[in-house]
Amino acid sequence: MKHNFGAGPGILPHEVLKQAAEGVVDFNGIGLSILEISHRSPEFEAVLAEAVKLVKELLNVPEGYSVLFLQGGASTQFALVPFNLLPQDGKAAYLETGVWANKALKEAKNFGNVEIIASSKADNFTYIPKDYTIPADASYFHITTNNTIYGTQLHEYPKSPVPMVADMSSDIFSHPINVADFGLIYAGAQKNMGPAGTTLVIVKNEILGKTGRTIPAMFDYPTQVEGGSMYNTPPVFAIYVSMLTLRWLKAKGGVEAIEKENKAKADALYVEIDRNPLFKAVCAKDDRSYMNVTFVCTNPEHEKAFLELCDEKDIVGVKGHRSVGGFRASIYNALPITSVHVLIDAMQEFAEKNK
Amino acid sequence: MKHNFGAGPGILPHEVLKQAAEGVVDFNGIGLSILEISHRSPEFEAVLAEAVKLVKELLNVPEGYSVLFLQGGASTQFALVPFNLLPQDGKAAYLETGVWANKALKEAKNFGNVEIIASSKADNFTYIPKDYTIPADASYFHITTNNTIYGTQLHEYPKSPVPMVADMSSDIFSHPINVADFGLIYAGAQKNMGPAGTTLVIVKNEILGKTGRTIPAMFDYPTQVEGGSMYNTPPVFAIYVSMLTLRWLKAKGGVEAIEKENKAKADALYVEIDRNPLFKAVCAKDDRSYMNVTFVCTNPEHEKAFLELCDEKDIVGVKGHRSVGGFRASIYNALPITSVHVLIDAMQEFAEKNK
Repeated sequence: MKHNFGAGPGILPHEVLKQAAEGVVDFNGIGLSILEISHRSPEFEAVLAEAVKLVKELLNVPEGYSVLFLQGGASTQFALVPFNLLPQDGKAAYLETGVWANKALKEAKNFGNVEIIASSKADNFTYIPKDYTIPADASYFHITTNNTIYGTQLHEYPKSPVPMVADMSSDIFSHPINVADFGLIYAGAQKNMGPAGTTLVIVKNEILGKTGRTIPAMFDYPTQVEGGSMYNTPPVFAIYVSMLTLRWLKAKGGVEAIEKENKAKADALYVEIDRNPLFKAVCAKDDRSYMNVTFVCTNPEHEKAFLELCDEKDIVGVKGHRSVGGFRASIYNALPITSVHVLIDAMQEFAEKNK
Repeated sequence: MKHNFGAGPGILPHEVLKQAAEGVVDFNGIGLSILEISHRSPEFEAVLAEAVKLVKELLNVPEGYSVLFLQGGASTQFALVPFNLLPQDGKAAYLETGVWANKALKEAKNFGNVEIIASSKADNFTYIPKDYTIPADASYFHITTNNTIYGTQLHEYPKSPVPMVADMSSDIFSHPINVADFGLIYAGAQKNMGPAGTTLVIVKNEILGKTGRTIPAMFDYPTQVEGGSMYNTPPVFAIYVSMLTLRWLKAKGGVEAIEKENKAKADALYVEIDRNPLFKAVCAKDDRSYMNVTFVCTNPEHEKAFLELCDEKDIVGVKGHRSVGGFRASIYNALPITSVHVLIDAMQEFAEKNK
């Protein structure tokens, strides 16, 4: 068995993969594959309805919000958010905490004015800025709740006087959130929710339809809401596997239970990084991510050898992003704590060898 | 075994489904699922490269064209085509042959002027208009090569003085085409190429980048070309299954071989429809589709009973689209001729019973 610390598309629960594989051959015993049935069939409509219901249950989504399963990844939402929420003469406020936040705000500039209200770019995004004022005249305020590349995470969300929009691609379903604090939440599935190919959007209906802009049907949230994510053929299999993963999460006790596991995994790993003289963390302690743990070797010349040791131990996906270097251990919901212990053991073995 | 005549997402080859299921559990023996590996891994890069290569081989794609695997279905392309090809003061020419052609031209109206150069709407799209002139000052000319709902198909493509854009969602890879006649071809995967969740685009590079419009990154063909379909995380599994399906098609002898099978299937079914007094075809004979065979009962009161008989015989997906009624037998590449014979037998049995 491999210990999959990949940053995404990331690890999925074993039992989900097994069920998904069965569905590819024969879905629920109907004699057809999930890949070759109509999205308008009662069988798939039940899958989509259950997926939406599980999102609402797991995150306690209040009345007045719609839950959508779309395509195109978070990168498509970078454009759809301002397309739908930012009038041409309006202004959007962005918190710049990493490459993805930066890409999001760049897309918004095509649609209106953008104000970067705080940024940690000058420090290579090693912390989350905290002293800023969200302008009350902004159309919305955008945050990226977890920064996959740098390994930082917002552990508290600001109170926003305007609708808050959050890219939660890499930490959704990893801990409880209060959806009512947000105008819109989006997340590519391929970290904690399912395989690549679908994107979750949770949107407060009353913030939509106010820009006066004509929006192509596929990019128009109200059209997607009206169509129940089926304005056109949805990504059937990606939604099916997401539903299975959400079902798995519910059976585990939901986001409250998984948060405890995630903290236990992250804490164990950060303790080792701080303790082990061969390694060090790179981000501000208060802003460390519970999803993507970044660290480097105190002596950069050791890095190649440690990657080789990981390879020997079937530890995969720990090479850091090219813009940061070092290591990144992504410890998403589905990663068992036993894998974290294998990594910690490897770090200790490596320290022994290099005393 | 079911006989799957569904219009889409449609039938896929059995061996492809088996391989896909194996990949969901353990992809190529690497100890990880295809659903949980990085899209930047050498394993997935090889899948994408092979998928692109197979498209080029099977369709004889000439130099100067790019092959993309995107997300969002053909409905997204309805907007991306004019976004990328139609200047604000320009004009696009559309042939209106069905609901999908109509949706495509409606989206184009958001971006510039649209001229419907011919339409069969007044006759409920039962034929393909043929006498028309394509304006030489249009930015492009758009056709829908097969009309899934009505069961009509263009069996010859017009010569166009301007770049020809084709929605081939429901007949791509069903017969040889001359890609050089087209500026852009697009197709949702879920009929002849793979599962829902990816969209094939084949585009002549030299027609791009001429509108002067600023286009969000995800909607900009040049950005997708430059990123090799990996500007962001692509729909890994849908591309993988598409690659497997294209490999299957190549092993069968490619589009020339499958065209013969498709004609044999369609001819057998149309002969029965024309012969059997209880059924009749609805479309102009010359424009009958080799992919979606539409027909009705001569006595509409028989339709319910025939659907029940189909159900008994494990024939699924033959109910006609609500806007046409009657029956629609979709006979995509993966449908074996034995299934067509089962349907024909059912029609003959039904005629015997109702003499």
